[in-house]
Amino acid sequence: MLRPVCKYATRQLKAPCRLVATTIGRRHLHTPVAFDWKDPLGSNNLFTDDELAIAETAESYCQERMQPRVLAIQDAYRHEDFDKKILEEMGELGLLGATIQGYGCAGVSSVASGLITRAVERVDSGYRSGYSVQSALVMGGIEEFGTQEQKEKFLPDLAKGKLVGCFGLTEPNHGSDPGSMETVAEPHPSKKGYYTLSGAKTWITNSPIADVLMVWAKLGQNGKIRGFLIERDQCPPGTLETPPIKNKNGLRASITGMIQLDDCPVPEANMFPDVEGLRGPFSCLNSARYGIAWGTMGALEDAIARTREYALERKQFKSNPIAKYQLVQKKLADASTDAAYGILAATQIGRLKDEGKAAPEMISMIKRQNCDRALVNTRVLQEVFGGNAVSDEYHIGRHVANLFVTQTYEGQSDIHALILGRAITGLQAFC
Amino acid sequence: MLRPVCKYATRQLKAPCRLVATTIGRRHLHTPVAFDWKDPLGSNNLFTDDELAIAETAESYCQERMQPRVLAIQDAYRHEDFDKKILEEMGELGLLGATIQGYGCAGVSSVASGLITRAVERVDSGYRSGYSVQSALVMGGIEEFGTQEQKEKFLPDLAKGKLVGCFGLTEPNHGSDPGSMETVAEPHPSKKGYYTLSGAKTWITNSPIADVLMVWAKLGQNGKIRGFLIERDQCPPGTLETPPIKNKNGLRASITGMIQLDDCPVPEANMFPDVEGLRGPFSCLNSARYGIAWGTMGALEDAIARTREYALERKQFKSNPIAKYQLVQKKLADASTDAAYGILAATQIGRLKDEGKAAPEMISMIKRQNCDRALVNTRVLQEVFGGNAVSDEYHIGRHVANLFVTQTYEGQSDIHALILGRAITGLQAFC
Amino acid sequence: MLRPVCKYATRQLKAPCRLVATTIGRRHLHTPVAFDWKDPLGSNNLFTDDELAIAETAESYCQERMQPRVLAIQDAYRHEDFDKKILEEMGELGLLGATIQGYGCAGVSSVASGLITRAVERVDSGYRSGYSVQSALVMGGIEEFGTQEQKEKFLPDLAKGKLVGCFGLTEPNHGSDPGSMETVAEPHPSKKGYYTLSGAKTWITNSPIADVLMVWAKLGQNGKIRGFLIERDQCPPGTLETPPIKNKNGLRASITGMIQLDDCPVPEANMFPDVEGLRGPFSCLNSARYGIAWGTMGALEDAIARTREYALERKQFKSNPIAKYQLVQKKLADASTDAAYGILAATQIGRLKDEGKAAPEMISMIKRQNCDRALVNTRVLQEVFGGNAVSDEYHIGRHVANLFVTQTYEGQSDIHALILGRAITGLQAFC
Amino acid sequence: MLRPVCKYATRQLKAPCRLVATTIGRRHLHTPVAFDWKDPLGSNNLFTDDELAIAETAESYCQERMQPRVLAIQDAYRHEDFDKKILEEMGELGLLGATIQGYGCAGVSSVASGLITRAVERVDSGYRSGYSVQSALVMGGIEEFGTQEQKEKFLPDLAKGKLVGCFGLTEPNHGSDPGSMETVAEPHPSKKGYYTLSGAKTWITNSPIADVLMVWAKLGQNGKIRGFLIERDQCPPGTLETPPIKNKNGLRASITGMIQLDDCPVPEANMFPDVEGLRGPFSCLNSARYGIAWGTMGALEDAIARTREYALERKQFKSNPIAKYQLVQKKLADASTDAAYGILAATQIGRLKDEGKAAPEMISMIKRQNCDRALVNTRVLQEVFGGNAVSDEYHIGRHVANLFVTQTYEGQSDIHALILGRAITGLQAFC
Repeated sequence: MLRPVCKYATRQLKAPCRLVATTIGRRHLHTPVAFDWKDPLGSNNLFTDDELAIAETAESYCQERMQPRVLAIQDAYRHEDFDKKILEEMGELGLLGATIQGYGCAGVSSVASGLITRAVERVDSGYRSGYSVQSALVMGGIEEFGTQEQKEKFLPDLAKGKLVGCFGLTEPNHGSDPGSMETVAEPHPSKKGYYTLSGAKTWITNSPIADVLMVWAKLGQNGKIRGFLIERDQCPPGTLETPPIKNKNGLRASITGMIQLDDCPVPEANMFPDVEGLRGPFSCLNSARYGIAWGTMGALEDAIARTREYALERKQFKSNPIAKYQLVQKKLADASTDAAYGILAATQIGRLKDEGKAAPEMISMIKRQNCDRALVNTRVLQEVFGGNAVSDEYHIGRHVANLFVTQTYEGQSDIHALILGRAITGLQAFC
Repeated sequence: MLRPVCKYATRQLKAPCRLVATTIGRRHLHTPVAFDWKDPLGSNNLFTDDELAIAETAESYCQERMQPRVLAIQDAYRHEDFDKKILEEMGELGLLGATIQGYGCAGVSSVASGLITRAVERVDSGYRSGYSVQSALVMGGIEEFGTQEQKEKFLPDLAKGKLVGCFGLTEPNHGSDPGSMETVAEPHPSKKGYYTLSGAKTWITNSPIADVLMVWAKLGQNGKIRGFLIERDQCPPGTLETPPIKNKNGLRASITGMIQLDDCPVPEANMFPDVEGLRGPFSCLNSARYGIAWGTMGALEDAIARTREYALERKQFKSNPIAKYQLVQKKLADASTDAAYGILAATQIGRLKDEGKAAPEMISMIKRQNCDRALVNTRVLQEVFGGNAVSDEYHIGRHVANLFVTQTYEGQSDIHALILGRAITGLQAFC
Repeated sequence: MLRPVCKYATRQLKAPCRLVATTIGRRHLHTPVAFDWKDPLGSNNLFTDDELAIAETAESYCQERMQPRVLAIQDAYRHEDFDKKILEEMGELGLLGATIQGYGCAGVSSVASGLITRAVERVDSGYRSGYSVQSALVMGGIEEFGTQEQKEKFLPDLAKGKLVGCFGLTEPNHGSDPGSMETVAEPHPSKKGYYTLSGAKTWITNSPIADVLMVWAKLGQNGKIRGFLIERDQCPPGTLETPPIKNKNGLRASITGMIQLDDCPVPEANMFPDVEGLRGPFSCLNSARYGIAWGTMGALEDAIARTREYALERKQFKSNPIAKYQLVQKKLADASTDAAYGILAATQIGRLKDEGKAAPEMISMIKRQNCDRALVNTRVLQEVFGGNAVSDEYHIGRHVANLFVTQTYEGQSDIHALILGRAITGLQAFC
Repeated sequence: MLRPVCKYATRQLKAPCRLVATTIGRRHLHTPVAFDWKDPLGSNNLFTDDELAIAETAESYCQERMQPRVLAIQDAYRHEDFDKKILEEMGELGLLGATIQGYGCAGVSSVASGLITRAVERVDSGYRSGYSVQSALVMGGIEEFGTQEQKEKFLPDLAKGKLVGCFGLTEPNHGSDPGSMETVAEPHPSKKGYYTLSGAKTWITNSPIADVLMVWAKLGQNGKIRGFLIERDQCPPGTLETPPIKNKNGLRASITGMIQLDDCPVPEANMFPDVEGLRGPFSCLNSARYGIAWGTMGALEDAIARTREYALERKQFKSNPIAKYQLVQKKLADASTDAAYGILAATQIGRLKDEGKAAPEMISMIKRQNCDRALVNTRVLQEVFGGNAVSDEYHIGRHVANLFVTQTYEGQSDIHALILGRAITGLQAFC
């Protein structure tokens, strides 16, 4: 039998809605509102004054201090060099581990943290990678899973950028499948209260310069995955090597390397106490992925701004700026749309995160979509530059190369598609 | 000189952020949150209780009373028949012109109105078209531009669905370019206080059954576009014809026709008093386009739900449900992502609209993107049904055919791309 | 050690190449050659004079006699009606089973047969479906697997279009996986030399009007799939039903139905003698798929021609024909390219087929690609028509709806992708 | 009145087709043919024995001598270094200017030349660029437009690779619009029989190492574009500079630079005698573009082969090679299809070229499509490599970066789309 919908309406449509109506006041339909291409869907309306101030601080720092390191000197990208001082500067500004409360951290909202990340990646995805590893993976991981002692020992100096951290999960043969990891931790044969770790990790951002290495390993006795904080200066010679991986074709402004552990002794006190299995690293990755969803939008926005400027200045065929051509305008319209949508989605998940309502699959969704769209659109925008795109002085090629890596790391796009597919259908399609 | 960013940080990062931090309380990172494929990015958290109640009313009505008219009898779609009674039923529930305050209308928020639109189009885009014309174009237009007398005369009966309205802007030769309109209004040669209208409008939803026809015409004396409310029962025979357009390949559940005006007399009192030029019809269209951005997400969500169900039931190759295949899961993941993003964007613009902050280009952006993505994804999902997609009993083909029309009407996708391109670059690319 | 490449060059580059050079004569680089948008890559140079003459005959018939049945009367598509007389007319022209030698068939090349198919589908994919079933599936199947008696009995009348054939493989629950078929053939309990068939086939083109039904069934005794030729006029009442499937949203100009067999007696003499398993039906399907690769290019070419014409006539914004806009030109350029490439690929496989060098995967490749590209491009071209695309008088919507079906039948696009994937990698990914 | 199609049939279908039928003999439908993933549509059947031998020579040289220069030493790509000796080696093998007859050139067919180009770009698009400039642009231009003296003076040493050529058309401000060129040639104020050239060219492959520079300039007196052959060793100091452009993000194995002319004196005898306007450079570019259509298919084929190999070796999730996953197989199937189609199209245009039937728009079509599809597919294949794609040792990233350049140079994809659009519609859409 059909429910008495009409009665419903009397009670629910009429009465309570008046309440909504009064709060929204008279709508100003006639007032023309100007469109701002830098914020096409008005996302700035969603941020608090504090969040906007934090964003401004981060943007100022990144544009004024970080950008010149890529642009003028071009050391970073061309020579695959990472200036460790950047982390110290960010530390001074309170940008590292910013969502953490206490331990010298700023304790800001997840959205504020997202806005910082977007500012950093507006400059370069490699810088953002270095920043994410320090903030989300290492500091976030210690905050979530560390003992009180571990937190007090590491967080303050990590927050200042005096210690550099890295996060060792991925292994050479198990990129998308960390469950098959081979790195193993055994009770130390002689040193009591110590484990000894052996194995290899690869594609580890910051590893060659890291002081603290968060490494995930399987316990020999039960095969359970546990997390360890390895202090480089405590490792006997020959037990820890972190050779850099050179000649990368993307993320060249971040430093990447391996972690090679050869019976490396680590005190039990440096093991995370409770977390077992993949829940630990996956939780850290979730935070990092959330940041990537924000960061890639910054890179895309920078690509849009640069393309718009180039298209307005570049003249072809009867002195028309190429920005006047339909095929160019469509590219800009598409990219702006995806950037605006991506920011809204990242904001939404930031809010849910702080309310404890963010499911991991939500983060899979925004990480995947924002990386995919940033990559696709930046590639299309690159076409607007014609031959000049090949010169690194126009920056667009750097973004394209970087964004490919963001699409593939911390869960390749297809892997997240299958995570979502499983969540939607209840069925596993990985094999 | 570089600004003293560090001091900034002390004041802005540390201090005010603590405020934010306290409001967000302790984050519940450890609590696992379940993913809901029906609301992948938790948009329900953005709606007020009233809005959720309104959505429930609308969904109940649409699924219980409207859906069977398509499904069981299949009259509507197969035979291109529109049951006028639907508008009366919606009127009884307060769903028509729901954002209008007074005149028997509900006065709800723009988001609530969007939720109603989504519920209607979840059933069929044709029903939603009929609803949009009545609510957004006709009632919205009268509320915004009408005299007090016009509002009092027409709005209450339109709100009840006792009068049916239609909106006549598009002409046979000027689909995307209404500025070139040929319909003309001249002072009546004999009847004082009357205009006489001549010209033809086409692709007019509801025109064959409309009692009140809002028609836009150029004044003969100055070429300015003005709006008129033509009452069918006041038109002398032969001055107004509204032949239906049959054999459409989409939106078959809505009735569409022409408006042919041959020296049709209309009293000056039925002309909108102030609005001149394209500002009038474009403002109405903006409201309708906002609704389309919501509605198409409903259609896409229905396509996702039906595909998911089919894929779980359909078995191929060793009795595996096809939902288990990677290629099928990817299609579902892509579609869900676009639906979730689209809902967030529509919600954002709804909020901005009620705050008087929605630029027309924002609506171009969400109308275009949501229509495009709804169409693209529904076409891809259609592939999952294999040969069965060809049978209208699976509904997916109907959504595909409908959504093509939504992409093309009220601003074809490319036209909105160029509107956005103009807003981004400041340059006109229409010709 | 490196091979002495230089010597090679002396012998192979210099000497023999002179031969090639002389045959190609002096190249006429300076003579400007006109581009023909109807044959962008000059495929007509690849056809023999006979093939061109056959193509002309087929095109003339299709445009002059077949097209009006869709266009003027619009009976076929709107009312889902198939005029059986079409097959008779094609029979008179020698177009049915045209590659077969003898039995009153024309014995033409596979390319000539492809050109006929393209001409038919230029009009409508539904007509082409009816034609393909008769020619490739039924006549081709009998020629390849039939006994001499079967050939002599059926082929001449099928060639004249006096008998109509259909091909029953697909079952309701096993669309992409015919190996799981449930239709069964048992030795007749009483009638000697007879089998009795039971089961259901669905989505069978021509089944409601077929005189000869080629049905594939599993032998009860050993589970092997065998082919039977069922003569409708020999079936006792109640043993064979072929109800039409109505309300299709594509291929409405072809008639489609089920085949319901209830202990239907079929003489052993009507069973194919040697072929067992899926090899039989797959071989027939290969021929049909080859034809589809040709046919869909015809439909795409018709869509291009109609779009071009519409875009040249339709004026928007300052009286410019919309063909002048970049976004429209790009759509035409993309579609023309895919059509031209598709014709070359189909021609190549036609030649290899006649030389016995066509692997089934080659046919998977061209069936998949040509269907996919025809569908994608026709959908994009449809956008050029704006609102008018919704009217069936512009034909474009009909092509779009039809081409979706061609993409999904006789091997859905994803299935052929996995067939190709298996051929490339050697690994099975179906489950 | 309808033409008597039937009579047609008697004459054309029956009789002449028998001829065709007899030449094709009995078709071997039953013989299973193996699918070769390296040549999916059997294009090798289209080449003469000579062409296959030439291809083998070129492939051997490229794989054995050229590939190691990228792979083992990695000098070329990493350090943006071009080994001039490569041109000499190719000269020894007769691979340079191979279609030219006489002057020490091999005089092979356009298809043979395409096969050489494909072999070179299978290794690296940068090497192919260097080769194309020498062969198609410089040698081809001299052969087509040069005086007998110019041919005899330059062609033999260019053919041997003893002289290196470059082609100077593009200017800094007129990438896609050479008609606006600013480089000017004036009669020399003092030296009789000499012109003096001033202006700048950019993105000129080989310019820093070129001995002979073909430069296009406008005559001061009448604004007509003419071609000049500048001999570096004849230029007074300060009149010719060719600074390299470094830090490219693609084509790093080819050397690129500017050409700066400052009152550079060139003898009249080094001007092409007859050709005026853009016809000259466009004709050269047509030959080069034809080569690019072949070359990019080589790069794509190499990407496919590397991806296939990686996917078969790389194991994830329960030790399955990732080649077993549907999402991976689809990527391979798509890429193989586009490669196979592209080869057929390039072959077709090669044949038409030698018959004097190749319209420039045909070359626009295959240049655009083959570059676009090579780029798109290689990017998709890159995803299969996951994080490893970032290491240049897997080569895939190099192909991706290179192919972006091929898409944009010698006519960016959109420019060729508009050239095709103009050819299809007869309307100009460039502005």
